[in-house]
Amino acid sequence: MAALFRGSRNVLLRWNKHVDLALVSKRSMASKTPVGFIGLGNMGSPMAKNLLKNGYPIIATDVFPESCKELHDIGAQVVDSPAEVAEKADRIITMLPSSPNVIEVYTGPNGILKKVKKGTLLIDSSTIDPAVSKEMAVAAEKMGAVFMDAPVSGGVGAASLAKLTFMVGGVEEEYNAAQELLTCMGANVVYCGQVGTGQAAKICNNMLLAIGMIGTAETMNLGIRLGLDPKLLAKILNMSSGRCWSSDTYNPVPGVMEGVPSANNYQGGFGTTLMAKDLGLAQNTATNTKTPIPLGSLAHQIFRVMCSRGYANKDFSSVFQFLREEEGQ
Amino acid sequence: MAALFRGSRNVLLRWNKHVDLALVSKRSMASKTPVGFIGLGNMGSPMAKNLLKNGYPIIATDVFPESCKELHDIGAQVVDSPAEVAEKADRIITMLPSSPNVIEVYTGPNGILKKVKKGTLLIDSSTIDPAVSKEMAVAAEKMGAVFMDAPVSGGVGAASLAKLTFMVGGVEEEYNAAQELLTCMGANVVYCGQVGTGQAAKICNNMLLAIGMIGTAETMNLGIRLGLDPKLLAKILNMSSGRCWSSDTYNPVPGVMEGVPSANNYQGGFGTTLMAKDLGLAQNTATNTKTPIPLGSLAHQIFRVMCSRGYANKDFSSVFQFLREEEGQ
Amino acid sequence: MAALFRGSRNVLLRWNKHVDLALVSKRSMASKTPVGFIGLGNMGSPMAKNLLKNGYPIIATDVFPESCKELHDIGAQVVDSPAEVAEKADRIITMLPSSPNVIEVYTGPNGILKKVKKGTLLIDSSTIDPAVSKEMAVAAEKMGAVFMDAPVSGGVGAASLAKLTFMVGGVEEEYNAAQELLTCMGANVVYCGQVGTGQAAKICNNMLLAIGMIGTAETMNLGIRLGLDPKLLAKILNMSSGRCWSSDTYNPVPGVMEGVPSANNYQGGFGTTLMAKDLGLAQNTATNTKTPIPLGSLAHQIFRVMCSRGYANKDFSSVFQFLREEEGQ
Amino acid sequence: MAALFRGSRNVLLRWNKHVDLALVSKRSMASKTPVGFIGLGNMGSPMAKNLLKNGYPIIATDVFPESCKELHDIGAQVVDSPAEVAEKADRIITMLPSSPNVIEVYTGPNGILKKVKKGTLLIDSSTIDPAVSKEMAVAAEKMGAVFMDAPVSGGVGAASLAKLTFMVGGVEEEYNAAQELLTCMGANVVYCGQVGTGQAAKICNNMLLAIGMIGTAETMNLGIRLGLDPKLLAKILNMSSGRCWSSDTYNPVPGVMEGVPSANNYQGGFGTTLMAKDLGLAQNTATNTKTPIPLGSLAHQIFRVMCSRGYANKDFSSVFQFLREEEGQ
Repeated sequence: MAALFRGSRNVLLRWNKHVDLALVSKRSMASKTPVGFIGLGNMGSPMAKNLLKNGYPIIATDVFPESCKELHDIGAQVVDSPAEVAEKADRIITMLPSSPNVIEVYTGPNGILKKVKKGTLLIDSSTIDPAVSKEMAVAAEKMGAVFMDAPVSGGVGAASLAKLTFMVGGVEEEYNAAQELLTCMGANVVYCGQVGTGQAAKICNNMLLAIGMIGTAETMNLGIRLGLDPKLLAKILNMSSGRCWSSDTYNPVPGVMEGVPSANNYQGGFGTTLMAKDLGLAQNTATNTKTPIPLGSLAHQIFRVMCSRGYANKDFSSVFQFLREEEGQ
Repeated sequence: MAALFRGSRNVLLRWNKHVDLALVSKRSMASKTPVGFIGLGNMGSPMAKNLLKNGYPIIATDVFPESCKELHDIGAQVVDSPAEVAEKADRIITMLPSSPNVIEVYTGPNGILKKVKKGTLLIDSSTIDPAVSKEMAVAAEKMGAVFMDAPVSGGVGAASLAKLTFMVGGVEEEYNAAQELLTCMGANVVYCGQVGTGQAAKICNNMLLAIGMIGTAETMNLGIRLGLDPKLLAKILNMSSGRCWSSDTYNPVPGVMEGVPSANNYQGGFGTTLMAKDLGLAQNTATNTKTPIPLGSLAHQIFRVMCSRGYANKDFSSVFQFLREEEGQ
Repeated sequence: MAALFRGSRNVLLRWNKHVDLALVSKRSMASKTPVGFIGLGNMGSPMAKNLLKNGYPIIATDVFPESCKELHDIGAQVVDSPAEVAEKADRIITMLPSSPNVIEVYTGPNGILKKVKKGTLLIDSSTIDPAVSKEMAVAAEKMGAVFMDAPVSGGVGAASLAKLTFMVGGVEEEYNAAQELLTCMGANVVYCGQVGTGQAAKICNNMLLAIGMIGTAETMNLGIRLGLDPKLLAKILNMSSGRCWSSDTYNPVPGVMEGVPSANNYQGGFGTTLMAKDLGLAQNTATNTKTPIPLGSLAHQIFRVMCSRGYANKDFSSVFQFLREEEGQ
Repeated sequence: MAALFRGSRNVLLRWNKHVDLALVSKRSMASKTPVGFIGLGNMGSPMAKNLLKNGYPIIATDVFPESCKELHDIGAQVVDSPAEVAEKADRIITMLPSSPNVIEVYTGPNGILKKVKKGTLLIDSSTIDPAVSKEMAVAAEKMGAVFMDAPVSGGVGAASLAKLTFMVGGVEEEYNAAQELLTCMGANVVYCGQVGTGQAAKICNNMLLAIGMIGTAETMNLGIRLGLDPKLLAKILNMSSGRCWSSDTYNPVPGVMEGVPSANNYQGGFGTTLMAKDLGLAQNTATNTKTPIPLGSLAHQIFRVMCSRGYANKDFSSVFQFLREEEGQ
């Protein structure tokens, strides 16, 4: 895939002119030296464990000290702040809920950049606005460090089983160094281009996923009301041009597939609030780049209304239930 | 697939109580007797030829006599009206542009039902409102005939190569008789349920297709503006949950795939007006059944506006071009 | 207003060439002869009473005989069928729930047109698809009668107080005759043009009303969440370019205005199902005329979803409640 | 209107606890001392002139020195940077194109806050994200200054004639001081509440305006296609519940009204790009506050597409033209 980006390499090098490549290369060969990990929530905790399992000493911290306990018990060193992590590790992974947390952890009073060493590799696996990723990269570069965005797809289960997909944006020269760590936590690692493109890829995928899911829900509902058997309709769509991941892998209609949230009262899976958050990021990037996204935007609004109407914590495929005529009406 | 419908068989039989099953079964075994064909346009003409090739004598008619010439030259008998076709054939296929044409051909002053013989099998492959299919079925039943809807997916090329997909609605007992003829013209024949469900399946598929296409166009456009390479973005989507037919088989972005309309200035393929027509049918059935279809409805409006803005005859994937910022703006 | 239509008069006369104008003019001067009234529901009953009050003998019928009792007690003659009404009156008003009822009452086996006298004036005040109005006009014309559509705006209260607004479509020469009766039941009677334009005007108004109401609800909700006082925001909108009937006369936010449904838990007013029905008519006419209505269509979908989510019988301004974040979320 | 906010005064005082009220009151009584003005574009220039006409000495600056020439010629003192303005004036008005400009002018290296005097009153009349207004207010407060947002409605003409409307957000105690200056430039000055609510009011109004305009365009187009005369339809809407500013004051259909952009090929007026910009702000604030705005969001997307399709510089009422079927299609 590297060939795809050969044309843009010069741009990247120019952009990145302050990075001390001598320092960088020294660090990136130094495997099995400590890795910093900041953000030990539902996703971060199993990710950090997988690094430990692969033999990397971990220096961890979290705003909630109790989140660190489990990791501490299996051998991680727990410290008090991102700044302290930065003093002790020259490769750091962050996994945080949203843009403001990332800004705080990197540039806040006890943030990473207060103590970061030259040549440190900073990998942010949070899902945030790509514009914030770019800001962090600029700020890191000023300190002689390298920032990459590497958001994930896959949930808590995939995190535990090291089956995540990472979409990585940042300087291509650093991609191998990032990959070394990310492959301990994921099954697929994809290089997407300059800083922010990892976020862009994730946001784009989830926007199309949201559109496909609502579209599938509408279509299945319409077909059922027109007298079609839901399983048969799904089968027809899946052999035709209506086919999509939401129709063939994650069908939102109860009874059509097993092992998906629609078969379990929409429990588990990917919550409507999380989808609404990702669509909010898509909306912001679209608005800020003046890109029209009529269906993406309407999908955003629909999930927003669902959050207000009691579907916040159900899997996002519950949009089928939201749209369907209630019994007895 | 029959098992899927076992539960509804009694309903169908009751609904169909006036059909003279003795007559029906006599006819449906009489292979290679003449087949009527009404509507010899771009689609109907190659379909009728394929029946001829399979050894069925053809009795044909069309409102435009010149449309019949080619078929006449290769051996079809051409007559003056649908009524005359009905006098001479007890299996008739119709392939017409829209609901009013179907109503005219079946129930007009020179229509099929004026002369239809008891037990005749009527198969309508037009794409029309399923409510009209149901009306035609009721009217046919009053004359002792059987009406089935069997719209196709696949274009002129598939019609020539006998590679169409037929979605069939109607009395299950008649499905085998219909299948005998339809397999001469298509690669897939799917039984969908009672009359109108063939139309329903087609409409549903095309609605989801339209949503997936606009969604893919928006997503690709957004990703490109965020700095992603289009081929790479398509690759990421296609290995992820954003995957759909429009992203992996018919990508709307020039340069991403070969052999699709986007690689050929959106020529050929499935015209925007045709998609708008099918979405109009989806919209009407949704409105009449009080089914909410927010994305389907917005997709309809977008293709309508495109028709007014010069995209009527381009492939429907040109929505990418419609949404994209023009050069120099 | 007649001047507005002078240009189109010739067209109307040509279109209407079969009407026997001699008969027509005889009838329309014969005031205070019996008037037929078909459809004595919530709206029809007070309308018929107002005709009685104005001295017109009433010949009435309804599918539910009990609906006729009250009118019978105050002097109306009740008969068994629309056909019988047509035998006894040469001016007939119909007020029915939807298109199929209108088709049945006019063209059914006991319908008006079975017994209608030449020159009879038929006024339909139902809200239906303008295409059905046109069909009825053609059918009436074949019998030598004249059909006009005259849907109303205003609810049960306005019907009782003879304060309805009538939007009238039909032959301009007949407008005065229609007006004579309609002014007994309404405060405003507006001539809109050829048959069907009364329906068109009503549908258009209600579509824009629906868009304005949802827009006002979204805007008020957004402003409140941004820290604005609702009354102040309404005041600012109403002195600015955001002003609309829904913001200045029927504000959907509780506490902003008195005497509107939002001040009374959204009881009374214009039910969400009725608005959804009218938007369905707008959608159908737009689809059938290939007119893009992106906001009208989305408004339709929103009210459809509301009907499924428990808002069917609340006033349509409850869309504010539907969109608003619930307490504690 | 002050009474409306009595309840929130304590909150405001607490929030504003660091402002030195003694200094503040001294300054705000000192009329006719110099006023700073930053941003002398199409709007800012006539606004500054009106302050000069009212006897206020002006200290002005702009990134484009040539913009200052006209004002210099009629007596304003022109300086090199916002910081220099802040050294010489304790009341400063800013009128800038967008959020980044505001951030730069206030907090940049040569920004106002580098040299601002304690007690200075800062009034920003730019239309920007209310979240940025709040940030600026916090930054100003740290320096002992007071920041208010006061975006305008009305265009260049209203600016020249001192007929603008100002929507003002900020500490209520400072409102009188702001009003003293704003009334020199506008006909209406409305106090909206705490900092950011001026922006919120403007954004809300323009969002509802955009919805009303597209709704009016769709409705008029549908009515015309259904056979209604446009002037008559506008008249009916304007006496009914469909009435809105776009239908009765700024009708988008050529021939319905005089003196509006639709009567002049959509030249002049409020450009589609400007409306798209304001809807982008509405979209961002809605996304960031998790407020569903389905119609507002779709309106945003429609104006975005229009910008890409050649309507960028036409008045936003040209959406009628965008939606209408072209001749000959």
